[in-house]
Amino acid sequence: MPLSAIEADVVKKAPQIEGLMPAFHKRWSARSFAEREVSSDVLKQVFEAARWAASSNNEQPWRFIVGRRGDSTWEKINASLSPGNKRWARKAPVLMLGTTLARFSKNGAENRYALYDLGGAVSYLTLQAAALGLTTHQMAGFDHESMRAAFAIPPEYVLGAAIALGYQGEPAALGDEELIVRETTPRSRKPLGEFVFSAWGQPAEL
Amino acid sequence: MPLSAIEADVVKKAPQIEGLMPAFHKRWSARSFAEREVSSDVLKQVFEAARWAASSNNEQPWRFIVGRRGDSTWEKINASLSPGNKRWARKAPVLMLGTTLARFSKNGAENRYALYDLGGAVSYLTLQAAALGLTTHQMAGFDHESMRAAFAIPPEYVLGAAIALGYQGEPAALGDEELIVRETTPRSRKPLGEFVFSAWGQPAEL
Repeated sequence: MPLSAIEADVVKKAPQIEGLMPAFHKRWSARSFAEREVSSDVLKQVFEAARWAASSNNEQPWRFIVGRRGDSTWEKINASLSPGNKRWARKAPVLMLGTTLARFSKNGAENRYALYDLGGAVSYLTLQAAALGLTTHQMAGFDHESMRAAFAIPPEYVLGAAIALGYQGEPAALGDEELIVRETTPRSRKPLGEFVFSAWGQPAEL
Repeated sequence: MPLSAIEADVVKKAPQIEGLMPAFHKRWSARSFAEREVSSDVLKQVFEAARWAASSNNEQPWRFIVGRRGDSTWEKINASLSPGNKRWARKAPVLMLGTTLARFSKNGAENRYALYDLGGAVSYLTLQAAALGLTTHQMAGFDHESMRAAFAIPPEYVLGAAIALGYQGEPAALGDEELIVRETTPRSRKPLGEFVFSAWGQPAEL
């Protein structure tokens, strides 16, 4: 018997760390989505979170395409996903694509922080979603050329990740042994000493 | 008379939006820092927030160099900042540099989400800092070559932003008319309709 959604959530959550906002504890990337619609208010709130992210020169280079299951935008995003992602993302009530303007709009100069800033805005979106009880799953696995063609995305925009958003569903509903195992396996992260340095490769004494 | 720190904070804060986590309302990028140290616990908490960010293949490509004012790491980061950033960052109690591994560690293949994932992790760091009452300011303006040389950062790592972290100080303490104006001018963001689409360039009906 696979774990229930509630049990999987307990397994997947980050440890509770004193002083850390509860949303960081809650956020993880589920693959099983419940048959539950996402309200218009929720969608607006997650995009408001992205909206107030920081960006180089306040360029706000992020542009999102968003579709709801059943509409043609959702269908187009889904059609370009890798087969591995389609297996589970087909049940996501909302699919999005993040893109970013790789040039500064004021002077056309290259913006080397375009993807960095998109990643920052999406992080806020995913955290706000977690705070509202939703789950998000970012996907690098999609056909970039067909995705760009499907939406006629101009060449000065770079594609980021596709994002599934919805409410967590039962792991068993994934109907695929490998996906169920992934849905119920604890997450792992490097200890701070492996990525916070005082000199290169040397753990900082915080 | 310039605005006080409290008045500047009121001007700079994002609007309060129903349902949005309060930290999104609080976060903005100050340039004036108070003479107040950042505790070890606070630093650990902000890096814990970054630690639990999502990343492509769970690579966790981010590496941070962090220094406190007075130590040689802080001095090195500060030395490579642009003159414009040095004018105010010299009072920041903590300076960091974000870097990211541009190849997947498991097979050496290019990771095109390296900067994207670093941006996501830094976003979490900045939001957790805001939740704890601190301010962060990311800087693209620094000499990449001298920064890389100062820390002997290997070529497979790409530099992201430098980040100042501390408690907000009085705008007047910036001692520079232009900086004081920037410190007390309201922020602006594009409306949702300009970056949330259902088809390219077409505002989504959320």
